[in-house]
Amino acid sequence: MDVMNDEFYMTLALEMAERAQGQTGINPVVGCVIVKNGRMVGLGTHLQRGKGHAEVHALEMAGTEAEGSTVYVTLEPCSHYGKTPPCSEKLIRAKVKKVIVACEDPNHEVAGKGISMLREQGIEVEVGLLQDRARYLNEKFFKYITTGLPFVTLKTASTLDGKIAAKSGDSKWISNEKARENVHLLRHRHQGIMVGVGTVIADNPELTTRLDVDGVNPVRIIIDSQLRTPRAAKVVKDGLAPTILITTEGADKEHADYFEKQGVQVIRCGTGPRVDLLTALRKLSELEIGSILLEGGGTLNGAMLENKLVDRLVMFMAPKIVGGYNNLGSFRFEGVERMSEAITLRNLEVEMLDDNIRISGVPVWRKVDKE
Amino acid sequence: MDVMNDEFYMTLALEMAERAQGQTGINPVVGCVIVKNGRMVGLGTHLQRGKGHAEVHALEMAGTEAEGSTVYVTLEPCSHYGKTPPCSEKLIRAKVKKVIVACEDPNHEVAGKGISMLREQGIEVEVGLLQDRARYLNEKFFKYITTGLPFVTLKTASTLDGKIAAKSGDSKWISNEKARENVHLLRHRHQGIMVGVGTVIADNPELTTRLDVDGVNPVRIIIDSQLRTPRAAKVVKDGLAPTILITTEGADKEHADYFEKQGVQVIRCGTGPRVDLLTALRKLSELEIGSILLEGGGTLNGAMLENKLVDRLVMFMAPKIVGGYNNLGSFRFEGVERMSEAITLRNLEVEMLDDNIRISGVPVWRKVDKE
Repeated sequence: MDVMNDEFYMTLALEMAERAQGQTGINPVVGCVIVKNGRMVGLGTHLQRGKGHAEVHALEMAGTEAEGSTVYVTLEPCSHYGKTPPCSEKLIRAKVKKVIVACEDPNHEVAGKGISMLREQGIEVEVGLLQDRARYLNEKFFKYITTGLPFVTLKTASTLDGKIAAKSGDSKWISNEKARENVHLLRHRHQGIMVGVGTVIADNPELTTRLDVDGVNPVRIIIDSQLRTPRAAKVVKDGLAPTILITTEGADKEHADYFEKQGVQVIRCGTGPRVDLLTALRKLSELEIGSILLEGGGTLNGAMLENKLVDRLVMFMAPKIVGGYNNLGSFRFEGVERMSEAITLRNLEVEMLDDNIRISGVPVWRKVDKE
Repeated sequence: MDVMNDEFYMTLALEMAERAQGQTGINPVVGCVIVKNGRMVGLGTHLQRGKGHAEVHALEMAGTEAEGSTVYVTLEPCSHYGKTPPCSEKLIRAKVKKVIVACEDPNHEVAGKGISMLREQGIEVEVGLLQDRARYLNEKFFKYITTGLPFVTLKTASTLDGKIAAKSGDSKWISNEKARENVHLLRHRHQGIMVGVGTVIADNPELTTRLDVDGVNPVRIIIDSQLRTPRAAKVVKDGLAPTILITTEGADKEHADYFEKQGVQVIRCGTGPRVDLLTALRKLSELEIGSILLEGGGTLNGAMLENKLVDRLVMFMAPKIVGGYNNLGSFRFEGVERMSEAITLRNLEVEMLDDNIRISGVPVWRKVDKE
């Protein structure tokens, strides 16, 4: 049941921001609601990098009514001067009375500056309303801005006994429709999608976002230490989204030239034999890819886990058991010696998608934003 | 929020029956609430096989107030004459006005007879209120009474990647405390607990019910085709509960004699080399074991699944990933060729037990009572 209070408006601001996930590139998603005399007078959401911030849109809608208003904003207003004045300055000029901020800017160099600017001008500022939700919403941005590495979501789909194929290798289909839809929403909400070359060879996937409505296609990133990607692969030929091949110094130059002529970017990370995954993430980060959906195969998933490069796991489980002694699972790596050394997930969320189970959690090596 | 209606009272009757699960052997659990003039006048639960039925207890409590009352009972009142008259007759004698029954007796030979007896005497009878919940409550009894086979619940505990041990074989600990408590509640609620001899050799388990309060220990059933159970095993020596060794015709007679002298029952099922599991269940059924909790290991679990002898799966998953190439899983069997042949679970229930996930479901080969 709705209760009219500060949370009532901040929740709307968060919902507006949540719906915009995937649209803003490396930028955070932000929502803003301006209220005066018991009525909303302005709403704004940051919708695209390089375009207006949430506060700017909301102030424009409010016009002169912004004076004396209360502003609900999901992230601390910016304080830096660029082509236009910062949002804090705009709020000051608009003579708002009070600003309620869900969470501070995570960038340690600027955190709190926007809030200080407002307070110095006599504007009342409250910080922390629905903070956990606001941080969760921008967990990708927070990781990227504080570490310079993309946020990696590892997605798997398996049976209840952890298999991704039956004995014959057949895997059609494990997940139900809702789970598959959710995967495409995840694609929309990540800037990059990463798979190992084995997946490209086996399945020749498009790796695009396919939803009931149009979505944003992520950049396709293939981890391919020896440039074994087939020259006719869809990710090379279909032009549906940019493709990056991550390989090693020693990979065949003639192959690399071919791919580059096709418009595929080839990036060499390490001397091999395997791709240096941390270097790969750093280079992707330099290309302003701030979030990556990792979709296997098991060997790449395992290597990313071993290197502690995964920030969230999303596991879809179908209510099936296939048995078998050698069927592949979602994670192929040497593994830990003892149960106490297991990779542990926290902040677990479990949800039913019809008869499929969606499990999401954060490996303990990652600093959880809300703590 | 509670609403005062028929469900209000039937829910209490169901709750009383639910709490008695595990106390009544092969008998169903039944709850009864008698209401007159807006007040409860009698409550009763069947608590032990051979002792009073729920209706009898409730009628005794109600005394003369039963006349003109409404009776809520979770299972159709019995109609057969034994040492004492059937419950239907007792309700008639008590001159109750109306009887609301959650579900009919599943035994096809008697189904509906108790209800007919009441109606013939002018008592109004309604059937089907909260029927699904009432049937679920007695799913073990329903299976046993309609098929002559015990109801088998297969319980597993694994990591999210489906492993029951880390690389070294270490498995301490997978599940959290709440999950382990729930396993002991499951033991209390089953008449038998079944494991393979490998588990006895590896872990020397007690296989008893250990809860904050006393529980009922299940009969310990070891599937042991060659009688490899160690002579000093706890299940042989500790006397905490009856133990049955299920073996084959060819198993060593001298071993068998030893175990029988220790008070352990030895039952031979089939000529080997493996135990004939269907025969084993039939013989256990003849011993009035109507429900069995199957706790592995993986080979026995797999064999029971392959033979379609499992009626419910309860899987506990800890939020851990251990990886590894050859770690054991919960199910070891040849497995299906194609994903479309997977053993599928329906009526899925998923619950968090702190940070462990409890998944329960019914393999599709089993006729689900509520359909």
